[in-house]
Amino acid sequence: MIQRQNINDIILKRRSIRKYDPSGVVTEVQIKAMLEAAMLAPSAVNSRPWEFIVVQGRNKLDSIAGDHPYAQMMKTASCAIIITANPDALKGTKIDGMQMWQHDCGAAAQNILLQAAYMDLGTCWCGIHPNEDRMDSFRKMFAIAQNRIPFCVIAVGIAAEDFGSRGFYEESKIKWIN
Amino acid sequence: MIQRQNINDIILKRRSIRKYDPSGVVTEVQIKAMLEAAMLAPSAVNSRPWEFIVVQGRNKLDSIAGDHPYAQMMKTASCAIIITANPDALKGTKIDGMQMWQHDCGAAAQNILLQAAYMDLGTCWCGIHPNEDRMDSFRKMFAIAQNRIPFCVIAVGIAAEDFGSRGFYEESKIKWIN
Repeated sequence: MIQRQNINDIILKRRSIRKYDPSGVVTEVQIKAMLEAAMLAPSAVNSRPWEFIVVQGRNKLDSIAGDHPYAQMMKTASCAIIITANPDALKGTKIDGMQMWQHDCGAAAQNILLQAAYMDLGTCWCGIHPNEDRMDSFRKMFAIAQNRIPFCVIAVGIAAEDFGSRGFYEESKIKWIN
Repeated sequence: MIQRQNINDIILKRRSIRKYDPSGVVTEVQIKAMLEAAMLAPSAVNSRPWEFIVVQGRNKLDSIAGDHPYAQMMKTASCAIIITANPDALKGTKIDGMQMWQHDCGAAAQNILLQAAYMDLGTCWCGIHPNEDRMDSFRKMFAIAQNRIPFCVIAVGIAAEDFGSRGFYEESKIKWIN
């Protein structure tokens, strides 16, 4: 295994946090920094197919936890960021007909997580797409149009649990081709 | 717009690079650092559904460029990293039946890009899934099993072009809900 000091600190530090300080505050400046980081992600032919719903109300956060069995951390999160995709963002481009928004939204989501870690905030990425039931319930809860795809929801808060780095290098998952 | 100094430097610095120094060398230590960063990404129930094919031979890199119209940068890249997914990684877990590998592989891919930027390497993320023609051609070129999904291929090299930051904050893409 390579030496850990070669790995970017923020990538190493990021963990999925499921317990937050319920009185914690995530500021508007911090939220905008995460969203700017998201919008600095690459996207197919720079199509930027992402849109964001920032959820801050306690009742709304609790309703996500009530609906999504693996989003219980929303009960203590300070806010949630839903990423939705415009699947028509490539229409009229040179790659019209392709679907690449899953890639673009994944890159944006990971940037949010890392930007949050950089600001000492905790996050947890909860998948929505491609599971129809979850997509439907987010569409209903947040009035998301049928022509937009709810991709994921990210809990953000002040971490009330602390972990070391979890991921690890597995040579068995790598094939080298010359 | 918030002050740019709030944004993590590496997120800000990363750009899609399409011209590399053809004599550039990306070392095995650097490749392993990128792969370790990838494997530090979050994944659904820690299922780690990703696998990686590291392509270093000139002929193989050229063959990707020959096959994939938007992967011409492979002609000067020093290596390519293909991320494939195991769609059965959630079988037997508490979320058996869900499909979350798109999220997990997207997070891993963005970590590769950012770890590369941290090491002053250039990258370009080229989507494969969900486009059947591209998936078929990568399956053939790299003997990828039918039960694995070629998700994306990332060019890596020594950048021979230099850009400022490109992404930007767009308030119009954000909806705030209390």
